[in-house]
Amino acid sequence: MKGIVVFSGSAHPVLADEICSNLGISRSPVKISRFSNDCLQAQLLANCRQRDVYLIQPLVPPTQDHLMELLLMADAARGASAASITAVIPHYAYARSDKKDASRISIGGKLVAELLVTAGVDRVLTMALHAPQVHGFFRAPVDHLTALGVIADHYRGRDLTDCVVVSPDLGNAKQATLLARLLNLPVAAGSKHRLADDRVVIDQIVGDVSGKRAIVLDDEIATGGSIIEIVKRLGDFGCREVSVACTHGLFTGKAVEKLSSHPSIKEVVSTNTVPAPDDFPRHTELSVAGLFAEAIGRIHKGRSVSSLFDGVDPAYAPPPAVDGLF
Amino acid sequence: MKGIVVFSGSAHPVLADEICSNLGISRSPVKISRFSNDCLQAQLLANCRQRDVYLIQPLVPPTQDHLMELLLMADAARGASAASITAVIPHYAYARSDKKDASRISIGGKLVAELLVTAGVDRVLTMALHAPQVHGFFRAPVDHLTALGVIADHYRGRDLTDCVVVSPDLGNAKQATLLARLLNLPVAAGSKHRLADDRVVIDQIVGDVSGKRAIVLDDEIATGGSIIEIVKRLGDFGCREVSVACTHGLFTGKAVEKLSSHPSIKEVVSTNTVPAPDDFPRHTELSVAGLFAEAIGRIHKGRSVSSLFDGVDPAYAPPPAVDGLF
Amino acid sequence: MKGIVVFSGSAHPVLADEICSNLGISRSPVKISRFSNDCLQAQLLANCRQRDVYLIQPLVPPTQDHLMELLLMADAARGASAASITAVIPHYAYARSDKKDASRISIGGKLVAELLVTAGVDRVLTMALHAPQVHGFFRAPVDHLTALGVIADHYRGRDLTDCVVVSPDLGNAKQATLLARLLNLPVAAGSKHRLADDRVVIDQIVGDVSGKRAIVLDDEIATGGSIIEIVKRLGDFGCREVSVACTHGLFTGKAVEKLSSHPSIKEVVSTNTVPAPDDFPRHTELSVAGLFAEAIGRIHKGRSVSSLFDGVDPAYAPPPAVDGLF
Amino acid sequence: MKGIVVFSGSAHPVLADEICSNLGISRSPVKISRFSNDCLQAQLLANCRQRDVYLIQPLVPPTQDHLMELLLMADAARGASAASITAVIPHYAYARSDKKDASRISIGGKLVAELLVTAGVDRVLTMALHAPQVHGFFRAPVDHLTALGVIADHYRGRDLTDCVVVSPDLGNAKQATLLARLLNLPVAAGSKHRLADDRVVIDQIVGDVSGKRAIVLDDEIATGGSIIEIVKRLGDFGCREVSVACTHGLFTGKAVEKLSSHPSIKEVVSTNTVPAPDDFPRHTELSVAGLFAEAIGRIHKGRSVSSLFDGVDPAYAPPPAVDGLF
Amino acid sequence: MKGIVVFSGSAHPVLADEICSNLGISRSPVKISRFSNDCLQAQLLANCRQRDVYLIQPLVPPTQDHLMELLLMADAARGASAASITAVIPHYAYARSDKKDASRISIGGKLVAELLVTAGVDRVLTMALHAPQVHGFFRAPVDHLTALGVIADHYRGRDLTDCVVVSPDLGNAKQATLLARLLNLPVAAGSKHRLADDRVVIDQIVGDVSGKRAIVLDDEIATGGSIIEIVKRLGDFGCREVSVACTHGLFTGKAVEKLSSHPSIKEVVSTNTVPAPDDFPRHTELSVAGLFAEAIGRIHKGRSVSSLFDGVDPAYAPPPAVDGLF
Amino acid sequence: MKGIVVFSGSAHPVLADEICSNLGISRSPVKISRFSNDCLQAQLLANCRQRDVYLIQPLVPPTQDHLMELLLMADAARGASAASITAVIPHYAYARSDKKDASRISIGGKLVAELLVTAGVDRVLTMALHAPQVHGFFRAPVDHLTALGVIADHYRGRDLTDCVVVSPDLGNAKQATLLARLLNLPVAAGSKHRLADDRVVIDQIVGDVSGKRAIVLDDEIATGGSIIEIVKRLGDFGCREVSVACTHGLFTGKAVEKLSSHPSIKEVVSTNTVPAPDDFPRHTELSVAGLFAEAIGRIHKGRSVSSLFDGVDPAYAPPPAVDGLF
Repeated sequence: MKGIVVFSGSAHPVLADEICSNLGISRSPVKISRFSNDCLQAQLLANCRQRDVYLIQPLVPPTQDHLMELLLMADAARGASAASITAVIPHYAYARSDKKDASRISIGGKLVAELLVTAGVDRVLTMALHAPQVHGFFRAPVDHLTALGVIADHYRGRDLTDCVVVSPDLGNAKQATLLARLLNLPVAAGSKHRLADDRVVIDQIVGDVSGKRAIVLDDEIATGGSIIEIVKRLGDFGCREVSVACTHGLFTGKAVEKLSSHPSIKEVVSTNTVPAPDDFPRHTELSVAGLFAEAIGRIHKGRSVSSLFDGVDPAYAPPPAVDGLF
Repeated sequence: MKGIVVFSGSAHPVLADEICSNLGISRSPVKISRFSNDCLQAQLLANCRQRDVYLIQPLVPPTQDHLMELLLMADAARGASAASITAVIPHYAYARSDKKDASRISIGGKLVAELLVTAGVDRVLTMALHAPQVHGFFRAPVDHLTALGVIADHYRGRDLTDCVVVSPDLGNAKQATLLARLLNLPVAAGSKHRLADDRVVIDQIVGDVSGKRAIVLDDEIATGGSIIEIVKRLGDFGCREVSVACTHGLFTGKAVEKLSSHPSIKEVVSTNTVPAPDDFPRHTELSVAGLFAEAIGRIHKGRSVSSLFDGVDPAYAPPPAVDGLF
Repeated sequence: MKGIVVFSGSAHPVLADEICSNLGISRSPVKISRFSNDCLQAQLLANCRQRDVYLIQPLVPPTQDHLMELLLMADAARGASAASITAVIPHYAYARSDKKDASRISIGGKLVAELLVTAGVDRVLTMALHAPQVHGFFRAPVDHLTALGVIADHYRGRDLTDCVVVSPDLGNAKQATLLARLLNLPVAAGSKHRLADDRVVIDQIVGDVSGKRAIVLDDEIATGGSIIEIVKRLGDFGCREVSVACTHGLFTGKAVEKLSSHPSIKEVVSTNTVPAPDDFPRHTELSVAGLFAEAIGRIHKGRSVSSLFDGVDPAYAPPPAVDGLF
Repeated sequence: MKGIVVFSGSAHPVLADEICSNLGISRSPVKISRFSNDCLQAQLLANCRQRDVYLIQPLVPPTQDHLMELLLMADAARGASAASITAVIPHYAYARSDKKDASRISIGGKLVAELLVTAGVDRVLTMALHAPQVHGFFRAPVDHLTALGVIADHYRGRDLTDCVVVSPDLGNAKQATLLARLLNLPVAAGSKHRLADDRVVIDQIVGDVSGKRAIVLDDEIATGGSIIEIVKRLGDFGCREVSVACTHGLFTGKAVEKLSSHPSIKEVVSTNTVPAPDDFPRHTELSVAGLFAEAIGRIHKGRSVSSLFDGVDPAYAPPPAVDGLF
Repeated sequence: MKGIVVFSGSAHPVLADEICSNLGISRSPVKISRFSNDCLQAQLLANCRQRDVYLIQPLVPPTQDHLMELLLMADAARGASAASITAVIPHYAYARSDKKDASRISIGGKLVAELLVTAGVDRVLTMALHAPQVHGFFRAPVDHLTALGVIADHYRGRDLTDCVVVSPDLGNAKQATLLARLLNLPVAAGSKHRLADDRVVIDQIVGDVSGKRAIVLDDEIATGGSIIEIVKRLGDFGCREVSVACTHGLFTGKAVEKLSSHPSIKEVVSTNTVPAPDDFPRHTELSVAGLFAEAIGRIHKGRSVSSLFDGVDPAYAPPPAVDGLF
Repeated sequence: MKGIVVFSGSAHPVLADEICSNLGISRSPVKISRFSNDCLQAQLLANCRQRDVYLIQPLVPPTQDHLMELLLMADAARGASAASITAVIPHYAYARSDKKDASRISIGGKLVAELLVTAGVDRVLTMALHAPQVHGFFRAPVDHLTALGVIADHYRGRDLTDCVVVSPDLGNAKQATLLARLLNLPVAAGSKHRLADDRVVIDQIVGDVSGKRAIVLDDEIATGGSIIEIVKRLGDFGCREVSVACTHGLFTGKAVEKLSSHPSIKEVVSTNTVPAPDDFPRHTELSVAGLFAEAIGRIHKGRSVSSLFDGVDPAYAPPPAVDGLF
């Protein structure tokens, strides 16, 4: 992999190492300093001149520090005459701020996209954005990966009799619908009423779940509030065996305790886009390092990234048979 | 309204006149010329210098011509030293191209947002974007109105016994959920499988519709394919009386014929963000000219636009009671 | 030609194929879709990653649709990580809107140049701009070809006794002067008085045309109004045999009928920058596909494009002998 | 004129004072310093905060120093929180570099337009650009004045029997054509062959000049080479009485001597967009300070500037009678 | 103060309230939310439309969170159609990262300046930048205040016999020189050798300090390492009574303990640009709220800010007497 | 050196030739024309397409002409499709305007940085900026070289007994401190009081110089006023033997005369970043052409430039030993 230099901020060096290992290269060191006035500084300790630089940093807590590290690394790479700068952000947490859902509110997902470009980022490589429209917040090209294939692989081969895929949110059920199709299962959804950031009421379940086993799918789990709420509601409707799956498993606050102790939850599945908590019984971590490494390799060699996902998500569909085209 | 100049392209002068009438001003003329090589040209026939210019133009067919008229009017206003240029786009049709749902595809909603800013647009006033995230595609401020209150008013006072609000698309059911709450009704949704732009298969209905009367709500109706499909499926499940409502009623192709002749469809309701077809039995047009005029007036006077929608959509909610804030 | 990908919109695939054939490559397919709300979408059906992408699209009627196709293809190529995007616009029709010739009017030639750059275009390859200054409207580099050599070649070898090159417009006679020098002929010009876009009065002929045979040269012919006018005036002054030549032969409206039936007009010559009309007697089409292919090849290999036109137009002159330079 | 601050660089303070006098305000001082390493610095000696700042500076020799003064004044005004910055450039000399007329050549007219915007200029007020397309080089609004009315007024009332308006250049005869129409005279033009910047050969005269008196009109006269050449050629064709007129009379090199001593030249007329040379017999200076002051006043009050030129140049035409418009 | 809206992030609401009190207005509330994934969100709880918005936020620890709050408030204000957005950053901590003092290092002071402009900031109001050149990192206008007058006032009227102003750093002694002139005292400086961010060796004192009382002046004190070092060195040279003064007193780490316990340090003076620590004996806080309020008032009324500092720092000097100016 | 094209403006072709000679390539010619209205034009007489273009031009008097040449060459290279454009500015004279040291003053160093990027410059290669912060004025990457190693080499091997390095300005003594460390000598500094651009009063010397021999170091010498002033003051304190050294030796006005005739000044050393005056006794010119050539070569080959200066200036330090990094 000549001409590639990969750096990692302090957010998730384990994932960065696993990606580098898949690429057959070694990670280059960065010196992140914190001044006594709490300002951060980044120094890249490998030559970037005319190289394609990849900066790996999911936006996990402490999110602002990790974001600033990423911006400073991009600034340093730009000043060091990098040929191109790709921000590899396995979890773009600010994607949840994707619309003006109250008056005079910031749209963080859009703002951070602009900040990254300002700092010198030429391209973004990310996974499972909260909404697919967030893609359009970036002026730079975005390669948007999906973990759906990895998650489907996890369930394939098991006995899925009487299973139903459940989305906690009726208004955001596209991924659940796709997973249901991949596993050939029906789909249901909670009609969610968000009272505050971590208080959620689900007042009805749309679709038939009675007596079934549920695979509850969400993109991100933080405190697990929504998940516990949908699991309770599922129980009310006679569904008492649940496997919980998500791409980004942050498990902040009391999430581990809540998810581990609920009697209906048999398993919690997430990928390694963010660091996994220690001591989390029933938790299974799926690795997406291979997907990221393959994507970086294809970007570098100028090969198609979308074909990585043939048959997983029609958004990455191979081109249709050609007729009547220009 | 001193200092305001309102122009309209050729897309919907009737709406522009109604807005102006609400504002108590008269519309200023524009000369749109088509050269013999089919290029367009716009000349604004009223002084714009240091004035706040409003350009009213929904993106209705022929969409490209209407878009180009809008861009040329903005360019002319910028060259004529307008103090500010607001594009009033009651129907921002390109919002449907809001994500990369296939590889190497254009994101028209984002591109057109950038083109408008390039042409000189400082602010956008629009209604019922296909997805709320499209807001974030614009670098300029966007005032995003909703017709939900106007639509709810239409149904209020009627006998709504046994009614259910139905979204044709499970993955996009937020507006239906909001209307259901405003009318105190339950909600259901079709699980839609889009085969092509105008061919849709709805293979299941999530939620209970049997024996009920449905209010089917969508943001835009073009050929009416999705609507007919959901109405058929509702019929399969025992629901045979349907009122169809949408914000943007384009009714292209055979929509009028299909919607007028289906036995279950008792009524089709849309607003005047786009010109209504002639000879459309069972169709009711609701006017949003008052909302647009009020919004323009508030923008001009520097008053809050969001408070127009108190109690309609929590995205326009009044600020919460203040405690523990900075 | 490794690393080149050539796409064509729907404007002129025949020319695109001829250019590709000259380059020895095959054209890559594009899927242009029209949504039921009349919005367009472009999907590029070949990998663009790290490739030099060429998008061939003259701006011919329906001009706005063809322009939007081009912008959408550029947007798609940018999002697909193209290394560079060259818009090949053999006829840049909006160049005619190149100045503010009335108050508060749009300058379409400048606006479209900005729109192209906004959509992601890195370079423009075009021919015979209406005014050479239009070059400066683009922030991106422009390679500006001329068809004058191809047109001169058409007349060379013929008997040119008593011939005069005539410009329909005294205020825009540079190209006619150049052709006259290449063919070693005198030059004359009409003093044109434009009443409207397609109504022209030529009230005098400046220069001696009496008893001569005229080669009337214009850059673009649309309805042919100016041409018929100058031919009539030439007849008034005793010149009754005319060959009409232009680079961009749109021949819209009744142009074919008017030009075919006028007794003085013996021949109409144009190039294939735009599609030729069917059934046009007396019409000769000259191909510039070879010039475009050669230019693309030179751009790709980093060789000089200007030297293609040595001896044709001093604007492409080889550098002078070097003395007293830095 | 509350809120206006007018500064002048060192290029033409006399004109600036005359403009201020017409506006009834006094000019605010600027301190231009030249460091010992020849770098320039500008300090504005009047408060600019929230004011509309006008910077008057024609680009006359030493052109680079005057351009840099203008850029530095704009930078200082921007840093001093001016509400708006208008560059008043009565002679935009770089407009002559308006196209790529040789390979790998700079387009100075475009570059300087970009530099001005970069330095903070929001609007440009100028006169008689070498080509009208140069207008489109600016991203900022341009108010483009014409001296044609002032020049026509100079000739009106005189005996114009047997007069002809002559353009030295067939390829650039639009202004001569307009002046001829204003004075109700015929027009002629030289077919110019430029060998170098100040060596010109005119090999034919297109149009009838024999025995007539000529008004030779050009936009700018520098060394006067073109003028002397056309006057000689006019003499060859029997025209021996010439009045020379231009907007921008730089009269560099031996221009004064050459124009004063030629027997056919009875008069040289220019405006005060640039400082007039001393000791120039036969020279008449027309003032355009009133036009500039009127334009500034109208810009400040938000009134139309174009209507200043009703009946002079159709490019400033009043809007046509309104029919069939939107 | 009509048309002004002042918000504060969570960094220093006490200062914001004191500024508002000086302005005679009340501070408008902001709701800063922290999502469970640690992302921040800002909602402005007062109408901003067409108002001049001031966002008060010094960049104090936790610096990244406070910076992000500021960026999000700017984004929200921009989206809410503010007429202008001024970031009031009493302590711009990132100014210390003002140069590339090692290879491939970020220049945080420049990057943050760009991020602020990207987020929508139109103007910056700040105090005592670490280096005056940092001013030039901003594309937006910067009003740069100095606390030197406030600090000088603190010492005036005291007995200053045998006093000397000491800069800890020979290479950065301009402010000490200015204070010395204001107090009519001599100046000295340490020749500082920085080993790491918080480890400093001062190996010589340049200037005479023996037997004198020192006023040690620095712009920012964080851990106090440099200060203790210079005080020790001063002691070696016979100077055993020291007053320490700075603009930005962060006093992080063990600064309070170290500065309170050193026998030579009689007093520590800082301003309230940042929140003062509790329980800091010998510490005197000087208020700059009046200066900020006065500056905001003058900005709003379009009056000169620089004249606030006549006689304090020649960088704010009144214009020289006018001679030989343009 | 395939793919490199080096041009020089008229400022310093001798240096450009020496750099090219070190690189083993020949310089490509440029045609700089001056129009009769004093406007400049640049034509690059070698193919730039897809090449890395280097434009060598120090900003020496006449500074504005040389700056404009550089901007025009960049514009021409951009229009000629250069792959990258590096401005090699050995002396960036405008760096002295690096802050707002009076109200409403231009910051020329920042403005020119923006102008260069606007003209198309992608990277800057320069030496010894007046202040290191000027680096941050450029959005493009800057490779900033130092002549300190070359100057130190000049003094090494001599008898340096009783020598002291003296900075004329206490507030700007960093370079003197570095040279002192490299030569293992003590440092002193004048406390400078600038009355005007070329009038300086030094009222005290901070540090011990009595009976010593001084090496006075400055970055730029123009009229030599500061130097003569410090030499006089050194004499007052008993130091009567001085060697004067600087990077940029402009020696304008009477500098040569003043520096040659002062009895204490034994030697004046400068580098060839700017052309040396003729007939300057006691002057030694050190060449930095090798450094520039080496830097260009490393930039082209993608190798580190900073390692050129190991051991000279810690700002180019090799990365620290790696521990605890990410």
